[in-house]
Amino acid sequence: MTASSPPRVRTVEWEDPRAGARAGARMAGMDYLKAIVAGELPAAPLARVLGFALAEIEPGRAVFEIEPMEFHYNPIGTVHGGIACTLLDSAMGCAVHTTLPAGTGYTTAELKVNLVRAITTATGLLRAEGKIIHRGNRIATAEGFLRDREGRLYAHGTTTCLILEHASGRSPPAEGVRDS
Amino acid sequence: MTASSPPRVRTVEWEDPRAGARAGARMAGMDYLKAIVAGELPAAPLARVLGFALAEIEPGRAVFEIEPMEFHYNPIGTVHGGIACTLLDSAMGCAVHTTLPAGTGYTTAELKVNLVRAITTATGLLRAEGKIIHRGNRIATAEGFLRDREGRLYAHGTTTCLILEHASGRSPPAEGVRDS
Amino acid sequence: MTASSPPRVRTVEWEDPRAGARAGARMAGMDYLKAIVAGELPAAPLARVLGFALAEIEPGRAVFEIEPMEFHYNPIGTVHGGIACTLLDSAMGCAVHTTLPAGTGYTTAELKVNLVRAITTATGLLRAEGKIIHRGNRIATAEGFLRDREGRLYAHGTTTCLILEHASGRSPPAEGVRDS
Amino acid sequence: MTASSPPRVRTVEWEDPRAGARAGARMAGMDYLKAIVAGELPAAPLARVLGFALAEIEPGRAVFEIEPMEFHYNPIGTVHGGIACTLLDSAMGCAVHTTLPAGTGYTTAELKVNLVRAITTATGLLRAEGKIIHRGNRIATAEGFLRDREGRLYAHGTTTCLILEHASGRSPPAEGVRDS
Repeated sequence: MTASSPPRVRTVEWEDPRAGARAGARMAGMDYLKAIVAGELPAAPLARVLGFALAEIEPGRAVFEIEPMEFHYNPIGTVHGGIACTLLDSAMGCAVHTTLPAGTGYTTAELKVNLVRAITTATGLLRAEGKIIHRGNRIATAEGFLRDREGRLYAHGTTTCLILEHASGRSPPAEGVRDS
Repeated sequence: MTASSPPRVRTVEWEDPRAGARAGARMAGMDYLKAIVAGELPAAPLARVLGFALAEIEPGRAVFEIEPMEFHYNPIGTVHGGIACTLLDSAMGCAVHTTLPAGTGYTTAELKVNLVRAITTATGLLRAEGKIIHRGNRIATAEGFLRDREGRLYAHGTTTCLILEHASGRSPPAEGVRDS
Repeated sequence: MTASSPPRVRTVEWEDPRAGARAGARMAGMDYLKAIVAGELPAAPLARVLGFALAEIEPGRAVFEIEPMEFHYNPIGTVHGGIACTLLDSAMGCAVHTTLPAGTGYTTAELKVNLVRAITTATGLLRAEGKIIHRGNRIATAEGFLRDREGRLYAHGTTTCLILEHASGRSPPAEGVRDS
Repeated sequence: MTASSPPRVRTVEWEDPRAGARAGARMAGMDYLKAIVAGELPAAPLARVLGFALAEIEPGRAVFEIEPMEFHYNPIGTVHGGIACTLLDSAMGCAVHTTLPAGTGYTTAELKVNLVRAITTATGLLRAEGKIIHRGNRIATAEGFLRDREGRLYAHGTTTCLILEHASGRSPPAEGVRDS
């Protein structure tokens, strides 16, 4: 490493995700997500590791932000497609989560993401906006768009989530089962 | 934090992804990916940050491995769906990359991922296997499966990649344009 | 129309789909689908209109066949992509249906189809094979491949189905609600 | 069949799709699609067979209409999911087609469709609206929504299309090759 090279090291800390998940299982989705935006409940560990954050939340809509960094890169010279997927998954899933009353959960059954423009460190701040499309009793669908400050589109997607009824609050995460 | 709590901090280092990408642009896909497996060329920065690695490569097939950790978690108590997407995107994209002669590149146009079983820190090592389905002149498609050591399936997906001809090697990443 | 032009007219008949659906609601999926293959219960009206048929059925797998005809064409000179979607939807849905005990139903939440090679009247008989990937309690996923007699691939896809428990058999179709 | 049963027979006629496709290959997408709406060029044979029609066209947007009929049914008592796929494929593909200058073509690489509410003969007229999301040089993406007269949503989807440059107009359809 020469004197002019940027330091290529990153150190992150996070909080126990089980504590927040347990609190969340007793709260309506909007209340839980508002508490995360307000910093009253911890963000996802992965959000700390990758440097993204929930920026806005309202019924049926969630916005996450990320500043693309070199540590997000794939081996072919651009930001890894998994970053766009992760942001859109978060935004679309949280848009569904805003519609859930206390005692209800959800799990993402599938998502599809189109990657329409390369992301680099020159791209600047990106916002992933998720919006609910359909809210049924058992299935909800949502769409998401990843745009820069000028509104240019980098990725978009849709998701299918399964709505889960809890008899008595969410199961502890270590026993969490998606569908088996 | 009590004495029994695990330390919730992670420090990672990575290498300049542009150097590897430039080398890769002049190599056949198999040669480039073999060099990464052998440690002769750097892995993706994101692979270091998230702790996944290319484990096997052969024509039309690539396998990545990851050990699910607490820092991969979402705020609802399981590993974030973006992790499965990232691993499958890598595995499917590299399966396509193995088919490319020198002077050719690719970009992922879209991927769809089904998340069929929750992933936790109790899950243990996961392997994402990508396999080519169709290799056309302009479009290639691939499928991917994320399984644990016992073969249990956690996620699966498909992708559509666009094959790119380079007049004289790949452009530098800062100018990389997916399709605009 | 000159003397050498083929006649561009098609007349089809079908049977009341409600009768078969009511019978099917009381049967295990395998029994219902075997009865359709055997001609003991009516095929779908759409299968008659488009000229496709269920050819093989076994647990976790279903095969439909179609002979591409001019009346399947889109306005840009090839068989309409909706035909591949329809065949793959049938094959993947029936693969899921084979896993259902009596008193259980399913509905397709989503499907994704890749169209990898153009289909014309010169293509000849196509077989759409659907195979189950994951069978959970609430969600099942399947994959499908559309190939010609030589095994060349024309389209492939995946689907997410929702498993439905019936208290007392399936509701009559006019009241059928997917998820609202 | 008793006196009160509806007649379960359908006879349709269509026109040579090659003539329209050849004309279309020399026209800008908007001109070709306007000519179909105006009845100056023939609709797709499949549109005649299934009873759907292009109702509105403008740059970046296309609307198809269909009246769900019994002959659209699957064997489980509702309209076959392939009908929603066919309508959305048409609407999204034509939305892309509106952006193409003369001498350019497109092919659909993939589509994903969410089926969110069952369709029956009681549903009434459905409109499938396709809208362009991203128009790149090589790839275009579009979204589509299938709604009834009251705006209730029955299905929605996204598509990825490949833009094709023609050296000298589109090839004859019998030689049409998607990507091989």
